Amino acid sequence: MENRRPDGGEIGLRDVLSAVDHTLLTQTATREQIRALCLDGLRFGVASVCVPPASVADAKEFTGGKLPVCTVIGFPNGYSTTAVKCFETADAVKNGADEIDMVVNLGWVKEKRYDEIFAEINAVKRACAGRVLKVIVETCLLTDEEKIELVDLVSRSDADFIKTSTGFSTGGATREDVALFASRVTNGTKVKAAGGIQTLADAREFLSLGADRLGTSRLVPPKEQ
Amino acid sequence: MENRRPDGGEIGLRDVLSAVDHTLLTQTATREQIRALCLDGLRFGVASVCVPPASVADAKEFTGGKLPVCTVIGFPNGYSTTAVKCFETADAVKNGADEIDMVVNLGWVKEKRYDEIFAEINAVKRACAGRVLKVIVETCLLTDEEKIELVDLVSRSDADFIKTSTGFSTGGATREDVALFASRVTNGTKVKAAGGIQTLADAREFLSLGADRLGTSRLVPPKEQ
Repeated sequence: MENRRPDGGEIGLRDVLSAVDHTLLTQTATREQIRALCLDGLRFGVASVCVPPASVADAKEFTGGKLPVCTVIGFPNGYSTTAVKCFETADAVKNGADEIDMVVNLGWVKEKRYDEIFAEINAVKRACAGRVLKVIVETCLLTDEEKIELVDLVSRSDADFIKTSTGFSTGGATREDVALFASRVTNGTKVKAAGGIQTLADAREFLSLGADRLGTSRLVPPKEQ
Repeated sequence: MENRRPDGGEIGLRDVLSAVDHTLLTQTATREQIRALCLDGLRFGVASVCVPPASVADAKEFTGGKLPVCTVIGFPNGYSTTAVKCFETADAVKNGADEIDMVVNLGWVKEKRYDEIFAEINAVKRACAGRVLKVIVETCLLTDEEKIELVDLVSRSDADFIKTSTGFSTGGATREDVALFASRVTNGTKVKAAGGIQTLADAREFLSLGADRLGTSRLVPPKEQ
């Protein structure tokens, strides 16, 4: 399996790059840094650039519509109200976002308020007005039972992806979690691995385990090509 | 100065408690934990309880209007759009929030877009509809020059407090920063020290340096009384 796609083909650098949400979510990111991210993204043929909500309009300008712009909602702690997550999503779409990565309410997970989580995901998806929605479940804070509940719930929902991590908590994507999600998703739901993906070898392994998208701030350097 | 209020009086446990925003901002906080926080807050006579936006309505119910409820906006990364920060503030006020702790856009700080930061603070203050507004500047990510710019800017703005830290970045309140802010604020602006305040001795020292409010999740244990 290693270094192979689920279809058995070899995972080349292009496969890796085309699956990357090239990400800059540092608190202090400047317009110039967002610009550099977008230019690198265009040059390397990534899946999208992922930027803070306040940088979506800039990223849209820098990419000129040639690359999807992704942003984050209720991020990274997940405990905004549903009303705010929906408003924030609509605001991001208005500013040009093509993909929306939202964080679930983790207190609700601990209280097993799964119906409310499900309803919130679908409400945010409506606010997406047709854009791609990824649901971040922050695996490092979950029990195995909660991971299973959530992958099933996200699969049943109107969301497009389940995503492992924000990159702002105690841990990122693990091989076990990506394999679990990839083996259980139904209904066309895809898997995004994020947090701690640093090398081309990491990236290939997550893809071979069944991840469809990778969130990383470390784009594969061109010299490794 | 140590263990003395600015007026020269000794800082007793009551002084400390009455200055504490008793805080629970963990991602996984449950309704039961918010309830315990509120009951402790009522029992110990703190300044407020500080809870996630999605827990404001619950906290309002648990405190029964007998204790101010504080919440956080654009938290902790500060890079929500102004439109979202204002909506989130109005939503929190509608849910019963009495105090609002917002985070500034730190990318804008790095780009010296101080006019936009000033305008954003005043826009959020309007959305507060008379409630208290504290402005978190995240000192651990700032240069000394930026700290001075921001304490002067917050003093000129309509906000009520400058607050050092979110508690979610690389560091919390330092003695030097609290002393700097307390010595420079004008226009009635107050200082809130937050992040890493763990002991009664810490709390007394920050108050003696001129902090008016302390954000901490470790309420002074009653046995130290």
